[in-house]
Amino acid sequence: MVGTGCSGTNAYRYGTMREWVLSLTVVLADGTVIKTRQRPRKSSAGYDLTKLFIGSEGTLGLITEATLKLTVTPASQNVAVASFPSIQNAAECVTHVVEAGIPVAGVEILDDVQMKCINASGSTSREWKESPTIFFRFAGTPGAVKEQVGMVQKIASKTASKSFEFARGDEEMAELWSARKAALWSVMAMRRNPDDHVWTTDVAVPMSRLPDIIDATKADMAKSGLLAGICGHVGDGNFHAIILFSDKEKEIAEGVVHRMVKRAVEMEGTVTGEHGVGLVKRDYLAHELGESTVDAMRRLKMAFDPLRLLNCDKVVRTEQPAPGEVKEW
Amino acid sequence: MVGTGCSGTNAYRYGTMREWVLSLTVVLADGTVIKTRQRPRKSSAGYDLTKLFIGSEGTLGLITEATLKLTVTPASQNVAVASFPSIQNAAECVTHVVEAGIPVAGVEILDDVQMKCINASGSTSREWKESPTIFFRFAGTPGAVKEQVGMVQKIASKTASKSFEFARGDEEMAELWSARKAALWSVMAMRRNPDDHVWTTDVAVPMSRLPDIIDATKADMAKSGLLAGICGHVGDGNFHAIILFSDKEKEIAEGVVHRMVKRAVEMEGTVTGEHGVGLVKRDYLAHELGESTVDAMRRLKMAFDPLRLLNCDKVVRTEQPAPGEVKEW
Repeated sequence: MVGTGCSGTNAYRYGTMREWVLSLTVVLADGTVIKTRQRPRKSSAGYDLTKLFIGSEGTLGLITEATLKLTVTPASQNVAVASFPSIQNAAECVTHVVEAGIPVAGVEILDDVQMKCINASGSTSREWKESPTIFFRFAGTPGAVKEQVGMVQKIASKTASKSFEFARGDEEMAELWSARKAALWSVMAMRRNPDDHVWTTDVAVPMSRLPDIIDATKADMAKSGLLAGICGHVGDGNFHAIILFSDKEKEIAEGVVHRMVKRAVEMEGTVTGEHGVGLVKRDYLAHELGESTVDAMRRLKMAFDPLRLLNCDKVVRTEQPAPGEVKEW
Repeated sequence: MVGTGCSGTNAYRYGTMREWVLSLTVVLADGTVIKTRQRPRKSSAGYDLTKLFIGSEGTLGLITEATLKLTVTPASQNVAVASFPSIQNAAECVTHVVEAGIPVAGVEILDDVQMKCINASGSTSREWKESPTIFFRFAGTPGAVKEQVGMVQKIASKTASKSFEFARGDEEMAELWSARKAALWSVMAMRRNPDDHVWTTDVAVPMSRLPDIIDATKADMAKSGLLAGICGHVGDGNFHAIILFSDKEKEIAEGVVHRMVKRAVEMEGTVTGEHGVGLVKRDYLAHELGESTVDAMRRLKMAFDPLRLLNCDKVVRTEQPAPGEVKEW
């Protein structure tokens, strides 16, 4: 068919890394070196090995080289920060931005706890409102960026924003974005003693369910007594929890994460949006996808690594678990 | 890691269909039914089975259901059409559009032969310039679309465009896009007798090589004496040839396609951008990707379909070819 694949140029949406990978060089378990693809932007020649190896966590082969797509720096960029009385208000704002067809390059949320940590840790050079806050990134042609900032400002004020600021120049842009950048470090700075641990974990749900799962997870965290911030990629329905805990609180933290994962699966989401399953989330896969789908993944593992040499038993188990080894769902 | 996946909202770039698929239901060769994924926009839970089945041409399983991403209709859209003295001028225009960071939603090229066929077949309601022509699609917020049309118009005039038209309203938009839509049918309408065949085939190369490969392929087609139009997705370095031939001219057409494929591989491209390899391009895969990569694909096939029940020997051979069966490279 001619005409299925009308192609555009640069679209300013910072997606996941995998969308930017054209080709990989991979060393397979038997030592064979393969290149998954040449470097055109589009190919339908054979199976998509590139995507298969991305996110396989070293269990199918060892990636030694990656060819990435290039893009130009946007002609114009900006950042805006809006704070809201609640997560629901903040999410409602983003929903209206999407419905209005405004192609925002990035839209991130930090919760009140996260904003408090940023202030308390002094990670940035200013004081922030300690309520749910949305960070918008705009990129495109100069008039487009200006127009989009204006449109988003109007929508934010209609959805009860308590404040809305946008940058007037590169320096202000960096300043406004600095809180978003400081999220992880600011929670780490809250450790009461050097033995405290930080657990960063993530899940993703359909965008419409994001405020519900964040609210439920926040309530659970508050009840647990742990200090935990939330930082979300709203446009993807994906959020991270950054949880502080001591050795003694390990089981409490595990409970919080377990319930967060369960909630995500029940809302038709995934046990991890970006982090991968590794060992800790491996046994959740069957709950998310079903036993048959995990079996299909196991076939892939065994096809590429029949001797089970590479990161064995990560992502999928290749042997039956011992009795009692799998956590109750 | 927190913060790798900053997420935007709608980016108006009509990509390939695969970018819009969230999840698939697939019947495997042994009758097992699997669902590859739940429906969040982002997941890193396990291997990417979704992308594996997309484009596998029915050789790994039977797709029975697909869950797609939704997007809103852009607030504003437009179409512009620019004609150029040569393919090189047209490509230069697109290069400058990309370099200027203008996020065009679609950019398509039709060559002079293609434009002649559209006029001769009366497929549209107007007369077109019979020279290489670029069709731009714009989508976004109203001011952004207006700004982008203006920027592209300036660039086109600096790269020797012979004409530049943009739509003033939905009707004109449909009219300007009508030639792009009529590409395939207008060449088919040129058949001299009902037994003539139409061969549609495609390759893709890195964007910078697109004008070179189109020029070389056009010269080869002219020499062959066959009527053949070219229609390209410039933003992806991907183009289609639409070749008319009679039973007697079959070998000539095969030669044209063979050399077009070879040229693409030599320019670090792919033997097919959208159509897939099926049987005809299957033996080209090793030239594009190397024997080891094809072996890795064969492992996938045998892992999912050990009895070779599904579209056997398409995409990859599962048995040694008979002597003389593989075309000379």
